[in-house]
Amino acid sequence: MNALIERIRRDASYLGNGIIKVDSFLNHQVDALLMGAIGREFAQRFEALGVGAVSRVLTAEVSGIPPALATAGVLGIPMVYARKHESATLSGDYFQAETVSRTRGNRVQLRVDTRFLAPLDRVLIIDDFLATGLTLNALVRIVQQSGASLAGIGCVIEKPAEQGRRNIGEITAPVLSLARLGWDNEQVVVLD
Amino acid sequence: MNALIERIRRDASYLGNGIIKVDSFLNHQVDALLMGAIGREFAQRFEALGVGAVSRVLTAEVSGIPPALATAGVLGIPMVYARKHESATLSGDYFQAETVSRTRGNRVQLRVDTRFLAPLDRVLIIDDFLATGLTLNALVRIVQQSGASLAGIGCVIEKPAEQGRRNIGEITAPVLSLARLGWDNEQVVVLD
Repeated sequence: MNALIERIRRDASYLGNGIIKVDSFLNHQVDALLMGAIGREFAQRFEALGVGAVSRVLTAEVSGIPPALATAGVLGIPMVYARKHESATLSGDYFQAETVSRTRGNRVQLRVDTRFLAPLDRVLIIDDFLATGLTLNALVRIVQQSGASLAGIGCVIEKPAEQGRRNIGEITAPVLSLARLGWDNEQVVVLD
Repeated sequence: MNALIERIRRDASYLGNGIIKVDSFLNHQVDALLMGAIGREFAQRFEALGVGAVSRVLTAEVSGIPPALATAGVLGIPMVYARKHESATLSGDYFQAETVSRTRGNRVQLRVDTRFLAPLDRVLIIDDFLATGLTLNALVRIVQQSGASLAGIGCVIEKPAEQGRRNIGEITAPVLSLARLGWDNEQVVVLD
């Protein structure tokens, strides 16, 4: 996806310890037009794979929300973000799975109200990064708890060095990423 | 804004203590098409007020992100969300202001990297709720710290009973809300 790759080459930086900083266009500051293009790209790629009708886009707060919302807007379906923090409005029953924050290192409980995922749903998981795969695995487990079916997983940036695909879980749905990044000599490297 | 008001009448519920639950379309689960309509509505209303060119949309994570991203997409400008949590990627210098969470009650530091707001910027603040006004006031102070000018403030839902407009600060920019809500007998009431 050229617009994304160009932006990465121009603005991504390497912070060490496997952390790639993309806060000028993907998180913290978000390029709203690029998000629209990312949403269209995910919709087209999953359609080309024949995943069929999808009824929900699922992500985890915070930085998954922009690409997930853009994708849901293109597909014309609701976007659900798993919550990481307690809230006065998060009451009743929820699906829950634990992950570990890649950038903070702490354990986090992801929760989704049981009203928002049901057995008849077909769910597309969208997130900003495929790194360790632990957050995606938690989202997959939440989909499994709900009885919904998984249509696919799409991530904006994959870091293959962290081998996250091994941790996502035993799924048959396709896993896509729009850019695969590594690092060398303290520089971000676009892998393909 | 009819689509929003209809959705509120159908799906909003009152939790007591001034908390209105809108987690089936505005936060947690987000109606992506409604967000697009909200973005267009904010863009049109601020244009009708003659606010002129805007270079950034500013909000606070988490629930401000969907309406802010939708508005930035319509305007074709970046969206910046103030961060509430420490992050390995939030380094260097930032503007900072304290607020108090309306739904959790705790003090929260909002931070925006100094790279993303500059004196030549003209900033539109967008958030989901205008309740106590404390988060909007923190965002206004961040704009002031940066030297940027404030073009306007737009909120999806205003709760006039909490008199938040008094707390936003001394500003001359227009403050808009798309729906004004109260409560009576444990029911959400649309005020106008």
